[in-house]
This record gives sequence, structure tokens and C-alpha cells, in this order.
Amino acid sequence: MSNKRIIGFDADDTLWENEVFFYRAQMKFIELHPQMKDPEEEILQIEKENIKFYGYGIKGFILSLLEASVRFSNNQPDFQNIAKIIKIGKDMLAQPIQVLPKVKDTLGHLSERYELIMITKGDLLDQQRKVEKSGLLKYFSSIEIVSEKDEQTYLEILKKNNISPKDFLMVGNSLKSDVLPVTKIGGTGIYIPHKFTWKHEEVNGTFDLERIVELKTISDLKLWLKKLI
Amino acid sequence: MSNKRIIGFDADDTLWENEVFFYRAQMKFIELHPQMKDPEEEILQIEKENIKFYGYGIKGFILSLLEASVRFSNNQPDFQNIAKIIKIGKDMLAQPIQVLPKVKDTLGHLSERYELIMITKGDLLDQQRKVEKSGLLKYFSSIEIVSEKDEQTYLEILKKNNISPKDFLMVGNSLKSDVLPVTKIGGTGIYIPHKFTWKHEEVNGTFDLERIVELKTISDLKLWLKKLI
Repeated sequence: MSNKRIIGFDADDTLWENEVFFYRAQMKFIELHPQMKDPEEEILQIEKENIKFYGYGIKGFILSLLEASVRFSNNQPDFQNIAKIIKIGKDMLAQPIQVLPKVKDTLGHLSERYELIMITKGDLLDQQRKVEKSGLLKYFSSIEIVSEKDEQTYLEILKKNNISPKDFLMVGNSLKSDVLPVTKIGGTGIYIPHKFTWKHEEVNGTFDLERIVELKTISDLKLWLKKLI
Repeated sequence: MSNKRIIGFDADDTLWENEVFFYRAQMKFIELHPQMKDPEEEILQIEKENIKFYGYGIKGFILSLLEASVRFSNNQPDFQNIAKIIKIGKDMLAQPIQVLPKVKDTLGHLSERYELIMITKGDLLDQQRKVEKSGLLKYFSSIEIVSEKDEQTYLEILKKNNISPKDFLMVGNSLKSDVLPVTKIGGTGIYIPHKFTWKHEEVNGTFDLERIVELKTISDLKLWLKKLI
């Protein structure tokens, strides 16, 4: 290590595709329920209501879709839809990992110079499986699977790693989970947008832009870090 | 700390009630499906098939019950059952914690003399919530929520805590998850049976009894440890 900085990486939609599979699953669901008026909004509403029960991840998503199927089928239920939605969930859980472009190169380069940790939220088993299947484990000194990415979570991770916030950079595609809480505790948030971002993760309002860096792709990290030193 | 030993504690059905809520949920499910011939066996079969997708925990259990409901309703589906099963799941997730008798006293006593860690498997969010609600957090130096309790998992925890297997004791109600893997890596397994144990956790066959201690209740730990020193 030539540098005491620690770089945290979000995983879903930062290192590998994720949201697109939720998107496709939702499209399949909508095809099965042509009677829904504003399906995306109706599903999002149920998902939001259910986060306090289910947290994040595929299993909770599927339970919410099943609930939506019941709620919006009124008196003309199609029982086969239930079986089809369960199958959609299992297909999602068995989905191969699609590592995003330039991720391997970038992590290979950075892991020789910095300590990298992966910080991801969601189902424990599902996330562990994704980490293993991704082939990216070797680049990280530790993997943190958390239930919520808020200031408290980041403070605990920094404490565990014995590092001060000013030496911590967090890279991710979610302003709400990866960038803002990190900037609030005095770290730097590096925002790399992804085409698909879950609506629940979208943030409104203004925020201190001083500690936020926006990069187009993950491979821009190398150059940006070089300039920083 | 007067002792370098570390004691690991399973949580579900060792520190608080758990399986009884699955049992009651299953009873409600069976009442909703009077047509099933051998419902317990049929549900267990689906659960076992689904562990590779869902892992352990309430969300996976409910998804398996929903699948069972579809599979065993043949051509006479009752759509309302789906809504009822989803509700059963939410009730389970919102269930208050019932700490088992003598647990607080015992942990209070032991935590002054040993380092205690909680090692539990299941849904990350659900287990975190249970730990917080239980009021037992203060007795433990760390909480490990894992997706599987096998030899590999225990070896990693020992490594992280920098302790050798011979100084590790694991207390739990499951021979399969808490006791046998620990004895296999050279630790001591302390088996405290609970009235309800999930069938998947039952073990057949013979095993080396030298490293296994069976106690009737958790409060017997104090005396047993005193004799040991």
C-alpha cells in the first residue's frame, strides 16, 4: 500500500448489473397484469410500504410483486400469475453476474495502490453469492453486507477499519446511499451514474457539492485519483 | 476478562423463541389448505428445494408457503389464501422478541468473565432487528450474521477474533449448525435442546461425543464453566 486512503465500492450497478434485472422482472409482471392503470407507480408504492418488513433485495421485491398481483386483480384473479411471479424471482436469484465494463481493470489497478472494501446492501445470501460469482473478491480487503447505507453504517465501517472520514472515498451509483451519507460524515462521495437507478434511490433537493465528484465511468477513477495525490 | 476463552451463542431458539413462530405460521397455512394430504412433509420438501434460492429466514419461508399454496391447490385455487399467507409473513416479521428464561442473567454473568459473540444465520435485516429488540446487544463483543453455519464459517470467525479452536465454545440448540461443525474444527459444542427444532436441522448418524456437552438450560452454563476452570 502506498496510500492510507480506503476506497469503498458499492456493488449493485457500480461493479455489476443489477437494477436492469429488477426492471425486466417488473416488465414481465406488468405484461401479466394488463388491468393495472399505473403499474410502475403502484408497484413502487407497495415496495416502499414493505421496506420496513422486507428490507432490500430480490425476495422482498418478489413478495411485493405477489402482493401487487393480489391487490390489483380484484375479482378476476389469475392464479397462474402467482406461480409465474415466484418463477421470475427464482430466475433472478439464479441470474449469472454481469460485471460492468472496465471494472476488473480498474479494481486491479487500484487494489495495488489502495485498500478497497466493498459495501453493499441487500439479502445476505444473495449478495454473498454475487460476490463469489463475480470473481472480484480478490481485489477487496473486506466485504461489508449491510441492511442500510446511512451515516451510522459508514461511521461503523470507518471505526472498524480505523480510518478517519477524510481518508475515505466511497464510489457508487446512488446519491442517496453511496454519496450523500458519506459526504455528511466528512468523506468524499464519488458518483458514477448508471442508466438504471431504482426510483426509491432517487434524491430531490440541493446538497453541498464540495465533497461530491461525478465521474462518467469507473475507469475515470484512476486518472482522478492520480490528480488528487 | 479473566479468561481468554470466547463463547459463541446461537440466537434463534437459544436466546429467544423463533421456531415456534414458524410452527404457528405453518399451522395457520395448513388450516387454509385442508386438501393437502401430508402438509408438513410437503412443505418441508419445498423448503428444502428452495434453500439454494432463498437461504434461511422468514421471507424465504413465506415464498415457499406461497409456492406450496399454488402447487397443492390444483384446480380449486383460493386466491385469498395468497393475501393471507403474505399477511402471516408480515406478522412474523413484526413479532416482538421473546427472550428465553434465564438468558439475561446468564449472559450478564458470563459477559463479565468471557468474551461473548453472537453467531446467527438468516435474513440480515430480520436478524439485526431481533438483536436490537432483544436488549441483549450489550452482552456481546460482536454479532456475526452468516448465511450458513459450517466449518468454514466458524474458522473465519475464529481467525477474525484471533483465537484457536480449543479456546472456542459454541452454545446452541442445533446439533447440525451449532455443535457438530464446531467439534469438527477442534472446538467444544454445547448443546442446549429446545422443544421446537426445525426438521431440516435434525441430524442422523453417530458422532464423536467427546467434544459435545449437553445441558438442560442455559443457566447450567455457569456451573459447567466453573467446573471446567
